[in-house]
Amino acid sequence: MTQDMTLLWGSGSPPCWRVLIALEEKNLQGYNSVLLSFEKGEHKSQQVLDINPRGQLPTFKHGDRIVNESYGICSYLESQFKNQGNKLIPECGAEQARMYQRMYEGQTLAQKMADVIYYNWKVPEGERHDSAVKRNREALIAELKIWEEYLKKGPGPYLAGKDFTLADVTVYPSIAYLFRFGLCEKRHPKVAEYYNSLKSRPSIKATWPPTWLESPQGQDLLKDI
Amino acid sequence: MTQDMTLLWGSGSPPCWRVLIALEEKNLQGYNSVLLSFEKGEHKSQQVLDINPRGQLPTFKHGDRIVNESYGICSYLESQFKNQGNKLIPECGAEQARMYQRMYEGQTLAQKMADVIYYNWKVPEGERHDSAVKRNREALIAELKIWEEYLKKGPGPYLAGKDFTLADVTVYPSIAYLFRFGLCEKRHPKVAEYYNSLKSRPSIKATWPPTWLESPQGQDLLKDI
Repeated sequence: MTQDMTLLWGSGSPPCWRVLIALEEKNLQGYNSVLLSFEKGEHKSQQVLDINPRGQLPTFKHGDRIVNESYGICSYLESQFKNQGNKLIPECGAEQARMYQRMYEGQTLAQKMADVIYYNWKVPEGERHDSAVKRNREALIAELKIWEEYLKKGPGPYLAGKDFTLADVTVYPSIAYLFRFGLCEKRHPKVAEYYNSLKSRPSIKATWPPTWLESPQGQDLLKDI
Repeated sequence: MTQDMTLLWGSGSPPCWRVLIALEEKNLQGYNSVLLSFEKGEHKSQQVLDINPRGQLPTFKHGDRIVNESYGICSYLESQFKNQGNKLIPECGAEQARMYQRMYEGQTLAQKMADVIYYNWKVPEGERHDSAVKRNREALIAELKIWEEYLKKGPGPYLAGKDFTLADVTVYPSIAYLFRFGLCEKRHPKVAEYYNSLKSRPSIKATWPPTWLESPQGQDLLKDI
């Protein structure tokens, strides 16, 4: 069933990691996994561009169907393999509402994280401003307060409640990325608790970014956040 | 069934419009519709903040379930009211794959549009650069080329194929917004064709932004795009 699936991905990228987790959760091991290097620019290679005109990872093919957007791939897999592996959309309406809310709020978290982490990479030198850096950092701090509050109020242990859902599949990689970049566990205790509690989940453990395993020490860009 | 639904929204906002369209498509008329004014800052009022800590519109409540993210609300409504009104997720796997791809690519289109239209509003005066304005405009032009190509290749008439789906619900408001801000129909013929062909669809006609009906003349910010 998975022989006709191909995933092109890069290590450590939250969008790629989402898809790796979803494939594990749905028991879709055995797909054609192609690990590419962002550093070597392989996401702009012809192999990727043939499937994805944006030259981005993840890039995913199922037979002749192409889905490249990480949220799209996760939703597609859940829809196509509803009764296989773990159910990632809860039956309970209240939990479902919370799942959809957290899942899409996760995009705001990812954006605010990217605004801080990728600032120098995205903004040309002559256009950089300390005031923008400060504003982006403050926005990320405010965003993290919202998530800290959500996780405090619950109901946990997962983002939408008692079940591991698409909200966790999509948001967990961003949370792990924040800590990889030095986020302080003490200053964000509930977010850290959520992060640590899911490290040993089989789908997450099995897909932990290989580059992070090779060099366990991340950067400290977010240590003061 | 809809007496326990409340939608707080603002006229012209693509995220709000998505939800209005989805509610129409699912035959969920009769909900408590609260039209607020962005100009008067009503999206930051206590009425909104009580439900949505981000102080943004749309803000949506179904009983005691709260979903505020537009993509989340549309997905939630489709899931909760699967067998009511129009089915917004196609049965056909190939069409479903295309739907998920276009739906989430629509977020990139919306982002690139916002980078151009809201530049002066989002970037403080001392941080503005002509080079950034130029880059944002070029990125929007490149993005629009991708959509022009998609619509040319088909299969149409809708974004995912023969059915009107969540891809149309989520992306159409951005397309309409582009033309409202002066996008040239001649330079983007397939996008314009798609835009015009859906104007008379009941769900879209019924929810056309009231402020646009009042003053049919938009701005011309995008006339050279």
